Amino acid sequence: MRALVYKGDSASPVIALEDRPQPTLQLPTDCIIKMHRTTICGTDLHILHGNVPTCPPGRVLGHEGVGYVEEAGEGVKRFKKGDKVLISCITSCATCIPCRKGMSSHCKTGGWTLGHTNDGTQAEYVRIPHADSSLHPASKAPEGDKDGKGLVTLSDILPTGLECGVINGKVQPGCTVAIVGAGPVGLAALMTAQLYSPRTIVMVDRDESRLEVAKKMGATHTVVAGGDDVQKKAIALTDDGEGFDTVIEAVGYPATFELCQDLVAAGGTIANVGVHGSKVDLHLEKLWGHNINFAFSDMVKAYDVFGKAAEHGALKLNIEM
Amino acid sequence: MRALVYKGDSASPVIALEDRPQPTLQLPTDCIIKMHRTTICGTDLHILHGNVPTCPPGRVLGHEGVGYVEEAGEGVKRFKKGDKVLISCITSCATCIPCRKGMSSHCKTGGWTLGHTNDGTQAEYVRIPHADSSLHPASKAPEGDKDGKGLVTLSDILPTGLECGVINGKVQPGCTVAIVGAGPVGLAALMTAQLYSPRTIVMVDRDESRLEVAKKMGATHTVVAGGDDVQKKAIALTDDGEGFDTVIEAVGYPATFELCQDLVAAGGTIANVGVHGSKVDLHLEKLWGHNINFAFSDMVKAYDVFGKAAEHGALKLNIEM
Amino acid sequence: MRALVYKGDSASPVIALEDRPQPTLQLPTDCIIKMHRTTICGTDLHILHGNVPTCPPGRVLGHEGVGYVEEAGEGVKRFKKGDKVLISCITSCATCIPCRKGMSSHCKTGGWTLGHTNDGTQAEYVRIPHADSSLHPASKAPEGDKDGKGLVTLSDILPTGLECGVINGKVQPGCTVAIVGAGPVGLAALMTAQLYSPRTIVMVDRDESRLEVAKKMGATHTVVAGGDDVQKKAIALTDDGEGFDTVIEAVGYPATFELCQDLVAAGGTIANVGVHGSKVDLHLEKLWGHNINFAFSDMVKAYDVFGKAAEHGALKLNIEM
Amino acid sequence: MRALVYKGDSASPVIALEDRPQPTLQLPTDCIIKMHRTTICGTDLHILHGNVPTCPPGRVLGHEGVGYVEEAGEGVKRFKKGDKVLISCITSCATCIPCRKGMSSHCKTGGWTLGHTNDGTQAEYVRIPHADSSLHPASKAPEGDKDGKGLVTLSDILPTGLECGVINGKVQPGCTVAIVGAGPVGLAALMTAQLYSPRTIVMVDRDESRLEVAKKMGATHTVVAGGDDVQKKAIALTDDGEGFDTVIEAVGYPATFELCQDLVAAGGTIANVGVHGSKVDLHLEKLWGHNINFAFSDMVKAYDVFGKAAEHGALKLNIEM
Repeated sequence: MRALVYKGDSASPVIALEDRPQPTLQLPTDCIIKMHRTTICGTDLHILHGNVPTCPPGRVLGHEGVGYVEEAGEGVKRFKKGDKVLISCITSCATCIPCRKGMSSHCKTGGWTLGHTNDGTQAEYVRIPHADSSLHPASKAPEGDKDGKGLVTLSDILPTGLECGVINGKVQPGCTVAIVGAGPVGLAALMTAQLYSPRTIVMVDRDESRLEVAKKMGATHTVVAGGDDVQKKAIALTDDGEGFDTVIEAVGYPATFELCQDLVAAGGTIANVGVHGSKVDLHLEKLWGHNINFAFSDMVKAYDVFGKAAEHGALKLNIEM
Repeated sequence: MRALVYKGDSASPVIALEDRPQPTLQLPTDCIIKMHRTTICGTDLHILHGNVPTCPPGRVLGHEGVGYVEEAGEGVKRFKKGDKVLISCITSCATCIPCRKGMSSHCKTGGWTLGHTNDGTQAEYVRIPHADSSLHPASKAPEGDKDGKGLVTLSDILPTGLECGVINGKVQPGCTVAIVGAGPVGLAALMTAQLYSPRTIVMVDRDESRLEVAKKMGATHTVVAGGDDVQKKAIALTDDGEGFDTVIEAVGYPATFELCQDLVAAGGTIANVGVHGSKVDLHLEKLWGHNINFAFSDMVKAYDVFGKAAEHGALKLNIEM
Repeated sequence: MRALVYKGDSASPVIALEDRPQPTLQLPTDCIIKMHRTTICGTDLHILHGNVPTCPPGRVLGHEGVGYVEEAGEGVKRFKKGDKVLISCITSCATCIPCRKGMSSHCKTGGWTLGHTNDGTQAEYVRIPHADSSLHPASKAPEGDKDGKGLVTLSDILPTGLECGVINGKVQPGCTVAIVGAGPVGLAALMTAQLYSPRTIVMVDRDESRLEVAKKMGATHTVVAGGDDVQKKAIALTDDGEGFDTVIEAVGYPATFELCQDLVAAGGTIANVGVHGSKVDLHLEKLWGHNINFAFSDMVKAYDVFGKAAEHGALKLNIEM
Repeated sequence: MRALVYKGDSASPVIALEDRPQPTLQLPTDCIIKMHRTTICGTDLHILHGNVPTCPPGRVLGHEGVGYVEEAGEGVKRFKKGDKVLISCITSCATCIPCRKGMSSHCKTGGWTLGHTNDGTQAEYVRIPHADSSLHPASKAPEGDKDGKGLVTLSDILPTGLECGVINGKVQPGCTVAIVGAGPVGLAALMTAQLYSPRTIVMVDRDESRLEVAKKMGATHTVVAGGDDVQKKAIALTDDGEGFDTVIEAVGYPATFELCQDLVAAGGTIANVGVHGSKVDLHLEKLWGHNINFAFSDMVKAYDVFGKAAEHGALKLNIEM
C-alpha cells in the first residue's frame, strides 16, 4: 500500500510517499481500517521539524481519519467488516485506571500513538488497537457530509476545543468568553462554545484574516492583538470592565498566557489549550485572592500554533485517500 | 472601651491599648457586639510590619471573634440583644453579584473590612455591618467549649482550610493528599480533609515540631522539607510514584509552589491557600498535557506563614476580653 | 391608589378594582415600588376559584412586575429612588438557611408572599420587603423592550422554566428532551432549554394550537396527546426507541406524570414542574433498576395548566398600570 | 468440577451440587477464574423461589467472588495466569454507550449475567467475559484479610451501598442521614456513609437485633419501626424537626417508601436502593414545592429484603470453595 512516511528531520526530503506492506491484526482486539479521508495537522509539521523526538524515522504519519473496517479481530464486539468508522486521535483501552478516570490520553497501553509511536492514518490502511474503544461508528453522519470533511473534524480538533476549552472553561448560558488565538483549536473552541449560549465571545489574534473567519463563525467581537492596549480593548467589552468569566488560551506562548491572566474576572476560569514550550509566569501575587480556576487539559499532541498556518491561510488540510 | 490600636509601622510602639468610644449603629442592618473572645492572627502581624498599606494608623485590629449582641438595628432579622454569635472574618451583604456567586470576600460593600478598613474585634465592642449575613448564631456550640476557644476557629481558619484547601482541592474518599506547609492554615486543611476520608495525607514542612503536631492531628505521613529529596520522599508514598490527587499549597513561596507542581498526579488538583508576594513559575511545558486543575481561592487576608510562629511554637493566640 | 382586590371566592364578583391607601415602609429594608407593568397569571385564577386558602379576602393580587423605586428604606443598599426594577415573584432575605441553600422560595421570612399573604403588584404601588434580595436592577433591559413586556417574563415564568425544568432536568448539548405540557411554563422550558443546544425537543400537548406555537418557538417535533399511542409516537423520535434523556412534566396530572415515566431513558431525569393536586403512582417496580433521577422543584405557586387558557388562546396577560 | 446448580423452582430439591465440565474460553477477551471464595446472596434466594424468570433451570448460581486467573484470553491486557482477582457482580464491556455513561449494569453485552443468564461463581471455576473491565486486581487487599471475607464484600454489597445510597443520596460532611432498612444493603450504606462524615445517621428497622448491629457499625441513633410514631421519633432527631438531608430506602415496600417521603427535609434527597415489587404512591401534592431529589439507582439485582434474613440472623453467607 501507499503511505506517507517520516524519514527523519535531517533527511531530504523529510517525508516521502512509499510502498509499505498492508498492516495485519496483532491482537484479537485490533481492527484494520481502509482509509477514506485523513488530514495533515499541525502536529505533523512539528514532527517534520524534528520537535517530537518520540516519533522515529520510518513512521507512517497521521492520527485523524474516517474509513471502513477491513478486518476485525475476533475479540472486537462493536464493529464488523464494512462498518464506516471515525478514528479517534487517541487510542485507549477504556479499562486501565487513567481511562476509568476519563483521561484516555494517559491510557497505559494507548494515548497518542497513531502517527507517533505506531504507524498512522496517512496510508491506505491502518491498524487500530483497542478498536472497541478507539473507533466510533459513523453510520449516523449527516447526509450532506458524504465526503467526510465534516466528520473528520471529530477525530481531534472539535473534541479538543469542546473538552479542553469549553467544558473545562465552564462556559455557561449568559457568561462572557475570551479566546486568545484564532487558529484551528481556537476556532474549534469558538464553534463549540456556542452550544452553551454565552452572551459574549471575544476572539483575540494578531491575524486580521483569522479574525474575519472568527466573526463568520460566531464571535460577537474581535480584538487585534499586538499593541499595548489589547487587554484594555478586550476588557472594555465586559460589564464595568470586570473581565471574562472564561478565558481560553489557544496559542501557547508566555505572553499569551500572561494576557489571559489579565483578562479573567474574579471567580473566572482560565482553560489552557495551547501547547507550551517553556515555563510561564503565574502572577499569584495578584491572583491569589481572586478565586481563579485553571485547567490544563487532556491533550498529548501539539497543535501548530507557532507554524505557518497564517501565511497560507489554510487552517487545516483534508486529504482523501 | 479598651481597644488594641495599630499606631502605624513607624510608630513606637506600633500597637497600643487605648480608650475608645463605644461603637454605635450606623445603618439599621448593623449590630453592636460585646466581645467574649478574639484572636491575634498572622494577618495582624503583617499589618504591624507595615505590609498592609490599606490598613491606616488608628485602626482597631482583629477580624475573628465570639461575642453577644449588645444592640441590633431595626433592619436586622436574625439576631436580637443577648444572642451569642460567631463573627465571620468576612463581612458580606449576601445580595450583590459577587456574594450571589459565592465569593463573599469580594462583596461590593464588604469583604475583609474588620480590623482593616473598619475597626475590628480586639476591643470590648465592635460594630458588624450586614449583620444578618456576617454573623452566625452560636447557640449550638458544643457544651464542652464554654470559653469559645473552639468556636472562634470557625471565624476564619477552619473555613479557609476547608473551602480553599479541601473543597477546592476536591478531596474525596480514598484519594491521596499532600499538604505543603504545617502552619495554622495547613493544619486547618489537615483537620478538615479528614471529613472526606482520604487514604493518605502527607504533611510537608521544614519544622519537625510542626510535623509532630500534624501527626497527632491525623497526618498519615510527614516529610521534612529542605533537602533535595523532598519530592522523591513524598512521591514514594503514592502508588507507583504517580503523585497526589490533591496538593494543597499553604506556604506562599515560589519554591513551595514549585514543589506542589512536582507532587501532583496527572488528573490531580493543586489548591493554593498560601499568600504569595511575588509571581511564580508555572511549568506549562510539563503540565500542559497532564489534566491538572488549579484553584486560587477566596481569601483576601494574608496568613503569617513566613512569620515567627515556629520560634515560639504558638500557632495562634486566643484572647479573652 | 387603585388596586385589584380579591373579595373571597363566594363573593360576587370575586374580584374588584378598589381605592386603597398607598403602602408605606414597614422595615428599613423595604422599598415602595411604583408599578409600570404587571401580569395576571394562572396562580391568580387559582386564588379566584378558592383553591389557595392561605390567601385571604381583601388581598391585593399580583406577584410579577416591573416598576420604579418610589422610596427606599435606609437599610437598602442596592437601590435608590427612581431605579427601574424587576420584581421577583419570590421575596427572600438571602441570609436564612433555606436561602443560603439556594431555596429562596422556602425563605423563613419570605417565599411567595406577594399577592398571597402580602398585598401584591396589581396596584399602583407595592411594598417589597427584603428589597436588596427581592428586586433586580432593570437598567440593562434591551432597548427594544421599552414597555417591559419581555422583562416581566423574568419575574416568574422564565426562571421557573429554566431552573425547575431545564437545569434540574440536566439538559446538555446533544441530549434529547420531551416536554409534556405546552402551557406557559412548558413553553418557558422550551425557550430556555435551547440555551443548552439539545439535539431534539419533543413537545407533547392535547391542544394543537399550542403545539403550533411550540413549533415556532423551537420544538423540533410535536406529538398530540390524548390517544393511546402518545408514548409510542414520542419514543419513536429517539434513537432505537431508548427514550429521552430529560423529561419535563409541565401539567400536573397523575396521567401526565405516568406518561413521563414511560418516556424517560435509562439514566435519564424527570423534572417535575407541574403543580399536582393529588398523589401519583410511581412505578418503582419498573424504574428501580433504571438509574432515573427525579427533581421536584423550587416553586410554591400553582400555574394554571388546568384552566381555560386553551379556550381563549391567551397564555398569559400583561397589564400596564 | 463441582457446581451449585439451580434445578427450577418446581424441582425437588430446587438446587443441587453437581459435576459439571470446567468452563473454557469462548472469546479472546474472556478469563477463566479458579474460585477462592464466593457468597450466597439474597438474590440467589429470589431465584430459588422462582421470582427471577430470566434465570433458567440448569444455571450455576453466584455473582460475587474472589479467585485466581486460571487462563486469560489473548485479548486480555490487564490480567495473567495466577493473578488474584475480585469478580464484579456486573460484567461490562466498558465501551458501549451505557457503559460510557457510567451505567455498567445496562451494558449491551453484559450487566448482571453471572449466576443468572451465564453460569456463575458457586463452582470451582467460572468464565468471566469482558475480563479487563469485569475483574479487579486484588493484589492490594489488606494483609489481615487472607481468607478474602472482607474482599468479597466489594463484589456487590459495599459498592451498591456506596454508589446507590450514599453518593446518589449526596451525603456530605455535617448533613443528616436516615436509612430505612438495616439489612445487608442498608448496613453497607451505613458503613460507607461514614466516609463523608455526616453529623447524624439514624437507622430505622423493625428488628431490634439488626439495630444493635447498626449501632456497633456507627449509627448515631436507631428507631424501631412498626408503630405509628416512627416518623415522629425520627424527625425529632433533626434540628427543629426539619427532616433529613438524605433518606436512603433499603427495604422495597410501598410503606417504607412512603416513610421516606415523610422523613426528607425540603431540599433533601431520597435515594432508593430497595427492590420494589409493586408501584408506590408518590405524594407530589405535598412534595412538589419542596425541592426534593430522587434517585433510583444502578442495580439490576434484587436483594432479599422480603426474605428470611431476620429469622436466622445471618445477613450474608460466605462460602469458601
